[in-house]
Amino acid sequence: MAVGLGVNDFIACCGSTKFAEQMVADGPFDTYDKAVVAAKNIWFNKVDVHGWLEAFAAHPQIGQNPSSVANKSSTSAQWSKGEQSTALATATDSSLQELYEWNSQYKQKFGFVFLICASGRSTPEILAELKRRFSNRPIVEFEIAAQEQMKITELRLQKLFSNVDVTKAEGRV
Amino acid sequence: MAVGLGVNDFIACCGSTKFAEQMVADGPFDTYDKAVVAAKNIWFNKVDVHGWLEAFAAHPQIGQNPSSVANKSSTSAQWSKGEQSTALATATDSSLQELYEWNSQYKQKFGFVFLICASGRSTPEILAELKRRFSNRPIVEFEIAAQEQMKITELRLQKLFSNVDVTKAEGRV
Repeated sequence: MAVGLGVNDFIACCGSTKFAEQMVADGPFDTYDKAVVAAKNIWFNKVDVHGWLEAFAAHPQIGQNPSSVANKSSTSAQWSKGEQSTALATATDSSLQELYEWNSQYKQKFGFVFLICASGRSTPEILAELKRRFSNRPIVEFEIAAQEQMKITELRLQKLFSNVDVTKAEGRV
Repeated sequence: MAVGLGVNDFIACCGSTKFAEQMVADGPFDTYDKAVVAAKNIWFNKVDVHGWLEAFAAHPQIGQNPSSVANKSSTSAQWSKGEQSTALATATDSSLQELYEWNSQYKQKFGFVFLICASGRSTPEILAELKRRFSNRPIVEFEIAAQEQMKITELRLQKLFSNVDVTKAEGRV
């Protein structure tokens, strides 16, 4: 049983306070799978648009150093760095510059940071996706960003639950 | 030609600053029809989610006295009163109380006021619609509210353009 998961653990997965509090209220969860089912229900059905914006604001810009962002969760900043490792390994100075410029334009148009589940994605791939999504209507892009946030949340819940399992296993030795 | 329409005129139609500024930038409009085409384009394609929330916040709760709401536009408050005249004429103390309670629940779930183009609608109709929409996912309801805002904006633009025509006509005498 995944005991000991609190608001701060869930905030590291998704920066909406309501999301994290509701996860604690709905838990504890025996398995990762049950946690994901609850997380999807909370995120898409219960967290309002302000909560979505709150969660988006917890992310650094893609290509930006996560630790430079004011963040409620140091775990979130650490995980963000890991998730962007492929992107950073495939970045050149000019592609990083282009990413920076498109990110700024994106934020100006939509009012929140460009969100993408970056795990395993190269900088050219991310840049192409940013350019493709830029032409969307704001409400369409808002929902896509929320879906990307959910993918990120799933990956992070997985990490959270593997850590808990490790702790449990160590506890049993 | 509809001259002399400024930011404050358009703010009275839709409380998003970006909407109003963009209408001024895209104008002046010869006809009401041209203004509506521009308004739809701006509202759905250019105003971001923060702008939608800003516009929603300019509305009183249905059934509430519009002048009791802090509003950037006294014209908006006046028009709001007119739009709710059928609702108020068909309201009883108990239906107003029920409306008040459902409005509160709605705002708690979605984070913004229940928005409906109230013109010609009775209180029972509005209440039924509120209850029906309450079960929507937040993002779905967000977009419906934006569509209702557009209907309200169209009605108000119509008033704006009739006033302008009257002024013009008077000017010619």
